[in-house]
Amino acid sequence: MTEKLEALKNRLARVIDLQHAAAVLSWDQEVNMPDNGVGPRSDQLATLASMAHEIFTSGETAGLLEAAEAEVAGMDYDSDEASLARVTRRMFDQQTKLPADLVLRESKATSHAFVAWRKARETNDYPVFEPHLAELVDIQVEKAECLGYREHPYDALLDLFETGITTAQVQTLFDDLKAGLVPLVREIAERPETDSSFLEDNAFDQQKQWDFTLLLLRDIGYDFTRGRQDRAPHPFTIEFGNSDVRVTTRIHEANPRSAIFGSVHEGGHALYELGSPDKFERTLLAGGATLGVHESQSRLWENQVARSVPFWRYYYPILRAFFPEQLGSVSMSQFHRAINKVKPSLIRVEADEVTYNLHIFVRFELEQALITGGLRVTDIPDAWNSKYEEYLGVTPPNDALGCLQDIHWSHGTIGYFPTYSLGNLMSAQIYAQAKQDLPGLEDGFSRGDFAPLLSWLRERIHGHGRKFTARELMKREFKVELGAQPLLKYLREKYTELYEL
Amino acid sequence: MTEKLEALKNRLARVIDLQHAAAVLSWDQEVNMPDNGVGPRSDQLATLASMAHEIFTSGETAGLLEAAEAEVAGMDYDSDEASLARVTRRMFDQQTKLPADLVLRESKATSHAFVAWRKARETNDYPVFEPHLAELVDIQVEKAECLGYREHPYDALLDLFETGITTAQVQTLFDDLKAGLVPLVREIAERPETDSSFLEDNAFDQQKQWDFTLLLLRDIGYDFTRGRQDRAPHPFTIEFGNSDVRVTTRIHEANPRSAIFGSVHEGGHALYELGSPDKFERTLLAGGATLGVHESQSRLWENQVARSVPFWRYYYPILRAFFPEQLGSVSMSQFHRAINKVKPSLIRVEADEVTYNLHIFVRFELEQALITGGLRVTDIPDAWNSKYEEYLGVTPPNDALGCLQDIHWSHGTIGYFPTYSLGNLMSAQIYAQAKQDLPGLEDGFSRGDFAPLLSWLRERIHGHGRKFTARELMKREFKVELGAQPLLKYLREKYTELYEL
Repeated sequence: MTEKLEALKNRLARVIDLQHAAAVLSWDQEVNMPDNGVGPRSDQLATLASMAHEIFTSGETAGLLEAAEAEVAGMDYDSDEASLARVTRRMFDQQTKLPADLVLRESKATSHAFVAWRKARETNDYPVFEPHLAELVDIQVEKAECLGYREHPYDALLDLFETGITTAQVQTLFDDLKAGLVPLVREIAERPETDSSFLEDNAFDQQKQWDFTLLLLRDIGYDFTRGRQDRAPHPFTIEFGNSDVRVTTRIHEANPRSAIFGSVHEGGHALYELGSPDKFERTLLAGGATLGVHESQSRLWENQVARSVPFWRYYYPILRAFFPEQLGSVSMSQFHRAINKVKPSLIRVEADEVTYNLHIFVRFELEQALITGGLRVTDIPDAWNSKYEEYLGVTPPNDALGCLQDIHWSHGTIGYFPTYSLGNLMSAQIYAQAKQDLPGLEDGFSRGDFAPLLSWLRERIHGHGRKFTARELMKREFKVELGAQPLLKYLREKYTELYEL
Repeated sequence: MTEKLEALKNRLARVIDLQHAAAVLSWDQEVNMPDNGVGPRSDQLATLASMAHEIFTSGETAGLLEAAEAEVAGMDYDSDEASLARVTRRMFDQQTKLPADLVLRESKATSHAFVAWRKARETNDYPVFEPHLAELVDIQVEKAECLGYREHPYDALLDLFETGITTAQVQTLFDDLKAGLVPLVREIAERPETDSSFLEDNAFDQQKQWDFTLLLLRDIGYDFTRGRQDRAPHPFTIEFGNSDVRVTTRIHEANPRSAIFGSVHEGGHALYELGSPDKFERTLLAGGATLGVHESQSRLWENQVARSVPFWRYYYPILRAFFPEQLGSVSMSQFHRAINKVKPSLIRVEADEVTYNLHIFVRFELEQALITGGLRVTDIPDAWNSKYEEYLGVTPPNDALGCLQDIHWSHGTIGYFPTYSLGNLMSAQIYAQAKQDLPGLEDGFSRGDFAPLLSWLRERIHGHGRKFTARELMKREFKVELGAQPLLKYLREKYTELYEL
């Protein structure tokens, strides 16, 4: 019946294996690798990347793909078969535009850039990273030209992470979002500042924090027989198939929010990958739809779930048992207000829900300028700092707390950041529907019961793997277009209550 | 000048990268991987193995190799160029005899067998492992037939680990060794048993043991910027290039010898890999000569160095400072006798120097029987137990302490064990020469100074990488043939003093 498609699948299974192998090497590089291991690691990753690229873009794959397309031509757009052919075609066309040499250079440059970035951040020394970043930006510019675009070179890069959306469309969504956020931030700023000193002036034992995050991960449904948590300076989730999906977190003794919300955030990503159906394994349909949809899952668990009152009704007594000295005299309501404190700050991943997207706007603008040549790599620190002043009213005291804070550029990923805000938008759209579909949902949180939500997400989102773009998925499952209003409504309601606006 | 050889090197560099990538995946499988990760991991490893095999055995490699051989034809046997062509030819001829399908099947079977073995050992349930082992033995039999042999099918497998030596030659060496060991074991057994109760009846804090092993590794010259130590149920060393060489160890609270000597042993392997010259990186000349030579390095550091009086003259006060309660009333001499206590026992890796090789004889005999069909997989536990009774006078109370103790068969490696005893033989031959060449060598140990020994090993052994076979190396550097007498002499002298024979 689908003999040709099967032949294509068999060929591409090897590509997936090579990509998963590279993912294991990357995980190891970030979690375990000794510093001097970067030389051979860079060779290994470059070889894996170029072999995967060779097989994927070969004439043989092209032939199998054409035959498979002919075979599935009459099938339903939503069918697994048609979707596999469609998604493979999209990626094939993308990848064949990239010369093998560029793929090799990008992989090698990235391995070295990561090590340089880590060192630069640790020692607060931007010049250590600068030449690597300059090389990576050049490669991205070259890549955009190879991939092609209609309106803006940034479109080409964005499309790699968020298929089917343009820079201009993102700009419109961000403008809408900004229009609602700016007054909200201003109104909150006029209210008395929330007291969160008990979270900042205490020491929270690292092992206990760790144990608490394991408990949270287990409860939300993360399966430790198919994953593990490790510490990493910049938390991430990575999968090597749907039965080995790993999360990382970081622990600050002086700030337990980092580990708690970091773990739940990565746990949200991991649940998505763990929910990718077995039938899609070793095909391009495995995993998450787009990075934006992925982020909708992590943010939904982090914010809509884990920053809610019902959630802490269950977990606050447990957390207090872990830290009786630090939290014994702090009420649930004080704690809940503290973890939802809105205050413009320097670090994106530690930002509150309201100001978070302002951090993204900064990166979105700087990246576009880098790609068009309007901003030189050497001028990034200054540009970064003035954008932070403009959007958030804060100025980084150093680059480690400024333009060196994120790992992304060290991976050569430009065009990635906007997907964070798109994820935020979608998380609100998805959660609004979940609340409608699942009566008593939040009562469940108060009992530590997240199974109904997870089942619902499995069915409505995870089960589709990578078949649809974000817009297709939102339209098909929730009958909505991407939009900023649901997020603004959620934030307005939540913070009106919290800050008595 | 060596343009053709360079072309060959470039092609094979990708093979090495794939093998190193597979090594990272294997390390991860043994150190980190969640249990259910084995499915995708098995696919990934199989793809890497078969791609490496494809490139290595392709017509293109054959052509490049022939051209390179012609180019280096007049060069000195010892030259890097001639050696690279020679070693590549040997491995090429070996690998081309193995059908791609067999390589794929072996890789997949091995991933699953490892998980089954671990479970079988944990739950002391041989039948869990048995079908996997049966499959692996069949594969090894098939492999031996593909590779070909003159006298014995076991020759073909042995040659994969210890090039240029036959089963019959090993048998002769082992017979010599046995002839000297059996009376020595008997004489020692007639002497009063050494008291080692203070090492067995105390609890030794695991973290402190860990810290002590790190100190030892650092002192002998292990470079933590090019490696790391982790815990693993079955300690091993693995390298992904000469700047990422990792060791593993295991810690038993009730027996600090396991971690101490395990770490130094693996450290010895690691020093060899770390000493492989940069010029050999990403070629088949990188790494260690043979497994026997590799083991000579680990055993030399473990036994000749770390079980010696001078070594503990320096480290015993330090160890005692780590464990004042447990060792405060134990003298250096009591401690030294305890760590050199000779007593036939069940577990190979915990065995003393004198009885260690008896454990190898058991495996050497059983493996030959397995390969010729003289022993069925289902009968291994019984055969194992009776051999232990025969050689060591002890009977395993269960299979976890018997035939399930070693990881090797779960990796499908048959023909590997004899290299351990060959390594023991060579360690004594090498160390005898080191003592002659380096006056004051052992006085240095008493000051924690191992640099002269390491430099000497770097020059005489490590610096040659994989250029020579064990016999070539021993003849070239030390003017000796492989033989049992130096080891027997070393043991006889050491234990005559210790046991007042």
